[in-house]
Amino acid sequence: MVTRGAERSFYAPVDGELQELQRRLLQVGNGGHPTFAAAVQHLFGSPGKLLRPTLVFLSARFGPSTDREVVLNLAQSLELVHTASLVHDDIVDEAEVRRNVATVNATWDDDVAIIVGDYLFAKAYALAAVLPKPEVIAIVAQTVFALCDGELNEVTATRELPTETAYFERIELKTASLYAACCQGAALLADAEPEHVAALGAYGTSLGLAFQITDDVLDVAGDEVDFGKAVGRDLAEGMPTLPMIYAVDEMADPALAARIVAPGKSAAEVRELLRTIRASGGVERARARALAFHDDAVSALDALPPRPERDALREIADFVVSRVR
Amino acid sequence: MVTRGAERSFYAPVDGELQELQRRLLQVGNGGHPTFAAAVQHLFGSPGKLLRPTLVFLSARFGPSTDREVVLNLAQSLELVHTASLVHDDIVDEAEVRRNVATVNATWDDDVAIIVGDYLFAKAYALAAVLPKPEVIAIVAQTVFALCDGELNEVTATRELPTETAYFERIELKTASLYAACCQGAALLADAEPEHVAALGAYGTSLGLAFQITDDVLDVAGDEVDFGKAVGRDLAEGMPTLPMIYAVDEMADPALAARIVAPGKSAAEVRELLRTIRASGGVERARARALAFHDDAVSALDALPPRPERDALREIADFVVSRVR
Repeated sequence: MVTRGAERSFYAPVDGELQELQRRLLQVGNGGHPTFAAAVQHLFGSPGKLLRPTLVFLSARFGPSTDREVVLNLAQSLELVHTASLVHDDIVDEAEVRRNVATVNATWDDDVAIIVGDYLFAKAYALAAVLPKPEVIAIVAQTVFALCDGELNEVTATRELPTETAYFERIELKTASLYAACCQGAALLADAEPEHVAALGAYGTSLGLAFQITDDVLDVAGDEVDFGKAVGRDLAEGMPTLPMIYAVDEMADPALAARIVAPGKSAAEVRELLRTIRASGGVERARARALAFHDDAVSALDALPPRPERDALREIADFVVSRVR
Repeated sequence: MVTRGAERSFYAPVDGELQELQRRLLQVGNGGHPTFAAAVQHLFGSPGKLLRPTLVFLSARFGPSTDREVVLNLAQSLELVHTASLVHDDIVDEAEVRRNVATVNATWDDDVAIIVGDYLFAKAYALAAVLPKPEVIAIVAQTVFALCDGELNEVTATRELPTETAYFERIELKTASLYAACCQGAALLADAEPEHVAALGAYGTSLGLAFQITDDVLDVAGDEVDFGKAVGRDLAEGMPTLPMIYAVDEMADPALAARIVAPGKSAAEVRELLRTIRASGGVERARARALAFHDDAVSALDALPPRPERDALREIADFVVSRVR
């Protein structure tokens, strides 16, 4: 499984499920419109990190139920929700590349991307609808509402630097809710003990927050080649993130805030702002905040019984904050 | 219920359900993002014809089960699916007005409209997922796949006049599948006899085909004030419909086909083409085809027991082909 990074040991306990999931994801377009089928091959032909399904499969090991099929359905459903929301986000963001692969809107056009996203959401819900527990179906639906709320927060945001709290609210909706759904939903399906379900939900939320802050740090301070996408995209769009919020605070410079949230910056202005923010201490403070969420995630795991899957979840938390892409 | 056209007697048997549905539709945005809540008020504040929910409520009367709640959930789910697909279609079509009301993309922007559509789809699926019959949940999912297939057919269409058969396939996917789902899904939920379920499904399909052909005829030959939207929109976009296909056939003029499918026409060219098509006999032939589907729909009702709800379904078929908007 070189594509996922063979060096990552946290995949090992659930390698069989991940291979089956990848097989199923590539079949999602079967029987559909040729353009949808082509988009599915395009999207799932070069798999990403598959962190979310890995969380589903690992979390499902903490309950007595071993119905592999329902857990695969949840993993596929949530991965499709994630992919559908990315396809629509890429239209909104006018993004041309994601994970070194051309986006659907860039490969086809915005119209096709709207419908491909709708299709993927529909496939996701069709899988969720047959899950045996209504509370897990509700979690999937709530996750999509959260993604929509988070995305609406972004597109309707005023041109002001948000507070740290408003930023956390946004990334909880846009990122952490899906991580929490993976862990909590899988534990529920596996009939895990309520305190283990809660622990996995808390782990997922903290992990998602740590992941998103790290992503936002990489967009400011990452190496473009490692990162696999252009650096400074958030700045170019005027999308304020935590390292920027902290940079303004560290430098006590309201003029910097206005420059950060300005839309349609020149490449030179983006480079200049990147230098300023990197020099401010804001990046280090944001990394420290991600590490604090990492620690929260790891602490939540203390409530779980010791087993290889718990070690793997711990490794995922470490990976999420140490990754360079 | 003046807004729906108080003169239409087919609403009468299910007026209570329709009022409850309208109340619920207006609440769909409660608890959501303020922009989503505002869009919901905008979309459901001036109700349309509510033909699809009327079909659900009438069809549910042909089975012994009288669980009003599940039937309301199906009606709301399918109306939300319909509305969500319109919100996304209006982005693709760059439409500014629908039913004399500004579209979501025109009132806000395309980005908001993408997310509002996603939100409405998610609300629709959340309602469908709790329906007590998996086969009805599957019908809702299949309907969304059909809508997506139909829309992908449109946006990926080559600039050629389709055959009559290809046109029927497209409108079956884009329109008739949803009508059939309303009738068939409601009959299944009501535990209707299998032959009554089949009859209502066949009625819904034929009704939907008659509806869409009539809509396409109105876009060529309707009165702009009556129709409630600009006439000639399909022509302006180069979207070929049945009266155009028949006009080319009647006039045996391949050059006309090329003019019809040309994108980005001038207003003068649209007016000229409207005159040509109206004079060709293509409009009358398309109206006759709609009437034939109307007759199929009415014939399907023969399999149902005589009762006021059957009369109402008959009246809906008459209304669908005689309407001017």
